[in-house]
Amino acid sequence: MRVLVTGAAGFIGSALSRSLIRDAAVRDIVAVDLAERPAWAATGRVRWICGGIDDRSVRDKILRTEFDRVFHLSSVPGALAESAPQLGRRVNLDASLDLLEQLAGTSRCPRVVYASSIAVYGPCSGPVGSRTPPRPAITYGAHKHMVEIALADHVRRGEMSGISVRLPGIVARPGRATGFGSAFMSELLHALAAGEPYCCPVSPAATMWWLSVVQAVNSLIHAGAIAHCGVVQLPALRLTTAEVVEALAEAFGTERALLVEYRPDDRIEATFGRFPELDVADERALGFADDGSAAMLIRNALAQAN
Amino acid sequence: MRVLVTGAAGFIGSALSRSLIRDAAVRDIVAVDLAERPAWAATGRVRWICGGIDDRSVRDKILRTEFDRVFHLSSVPGALAESAPQLGRRVNLDASLDLLEQLAGTSRCPRVVYASSIAVYGPCSGPVGSRTPPRPAITYGAHKHMVEIALADHVRRGEMSGISVRLPGIVARPGRATGFGSAFMSELLHALAAGEPYCCPVSPAATMWWLSVVQAVNSLIHAGAIAHCGVVQLPALRLTTAEVVEALAEAFGTERALLVEYRPDDRIEATFGRFPELDVADERALGFADDGSAAMLIRNALAQAN
Repeated sequence: MRVLVTGAAGFIGSALSRSLIRDAAVRDIVAVDLAERPAWAATGRVRWICGGIDDRSVRDKILRTEFDRVFHLSSVPGALAESAPQLGRRVNLDASLDLLEQLAGTSRCPRVVYASSIAVYGPCSGPVGSRTPPRPAITYGAHKHMVEIALADHVRRGEMSGISVRLPGIVARPGRATGFGSAFMSELLHALAAGEPYCCPVSPAATMWWLSVVQAVNSLIHAGAIAHCGVVQLPALRLTTAEVVEALAEAFGTERALLVEYRPDDRIEATFGRFPELDVADERALGFADDGSAAMLIRNALAQAN
Repeated sequence: MRVLVTGAAGFIGSALSRSLIRDAAVRDIVAVDLAERPAWAATGRVRWICGGIDDRSVRDKILRTEFDRVFHLSSVPGALAESAPQLGRRVNLDASLDLLEQLAGTSRCPRVVYASSIAVYGPCSGPVGSRTPPRPAITYGAHKHMVEIALADHVRRGEMSGISVRLPGIVARPGRATGFGSAFMSELLHALAAGEPYCCPVSPAATMWWLSVVQAVNSLIHAGAIAHCGVVQLPALRLTTAEVVEALAEAFGTERALLVEYRPDDRIEATFGRFPELDVADERALGFADDGSAAMLIRNALAQAN
């Protein structure tokens, strides 16, 4: 099997690529990223292409291979796309449409997994899922939704098999992630695991969707393996800050809970701390799953970070 | 008031432009089309730009004016976009996004009326309206929906005031309209009005949404005048072929009904002859209206064609 991964040096992309390298069924991996080839990619099965997919010559280089499976993850993060919408359009929208158009022209009818985002929904109450009418409140989410539509149209035209996977914020991003409003979720995990104090910008009662990078990678690989086409919302655990802190205290020692000082920021609390129920019954029936428990979430989230 | 009309030589665009010329509140009209300036546009208030909006130099020429109101109608028709999706993307999607992006950069915060289409819905039952989840079944509809999303995002960013107006098939297009699967609706009206025999590709019981070009233009102008932002589904009469033939017979003589020979084409009947109820209560509350009756529909549809 020949596989393409865009954004292969990113947080999720590198975890996914490393998992694909371990998969005996994967013969060749073409990995694309703005970053130089990392050490883990120094294997003959990985062809590393350094460049952006908004560059026509980079896409032409990519498309010298015909792929069985494509994981399209590369994007400009939401906060950056919001402040530089033309850059966001060029990379998150136009380049994605160009890549899909070029893939549509290949003879192999690839299976395409597109990393979409919960940013498509915008503010909403009640159970949220793939049937919720999207009303994106950031340009990043608008572009993600537009690419979902384009992918669905390529599928309808019979040019590829495709699935758009809406990802929640994934933990635990390394270091101080920039451009992600939900970065505090990762920071909380890292701080308490390391025994460091943490000033938390949301209240103990703030409610978020939590998904580990390990489980996110499992879900992306599963999305590539099944035949289902369309949009799926990944299952995630809906936990309060307090529930996550409690699980961290159980894992690392009860005194760790005292390291958290709560200083809720109204804007962050409103945007990232009021997530409603998820409606993912269809996705569970398709075999997608969350981490199972807060304890497993923490183990999966921090295992990968090391 | 300075107004831009794209697709100004088209069926709807020319009727709209002629109506704007008669409006004393409109000071200047910039009219853009691939076609040369028509005779009715030979007035000092109309600046005619001959070219496609997918041409950057044409857009730059357009944007030398700052507009109070924009009617963006130009597009490649659905059947052509389906057979030439890259052309469809360039004109219907990319050029529309480029135009919106350039308008967003002007200081006047224009009111933008985007001519969207019922093609965004795809096959659906039950009452259809602006809240129906779009599942476009042609590339034309996918692109229309993507531009709706982009316009909504520009509105959210405060760069313009915008409304996407979903148009049904509009009657009565002149001559043998190509590229429109719903062309038979216009042909039926023209044939019976002229006393010519007509071979009808849908059954007497086929049910369509009917809207005259006069009423469509009224609706577009109304959409430009109100402050409401978002997507609206234009009200239209839901009539069977038999009901329209009956109204034509009342208008032009009962013997005209005998001119129709029904030879239903399964594909046309399935695609264009099974339209469900419309749910346009919100739009009626905003002041949008259909033609009122089959008799008025026919008068409005044929008045404009002459």
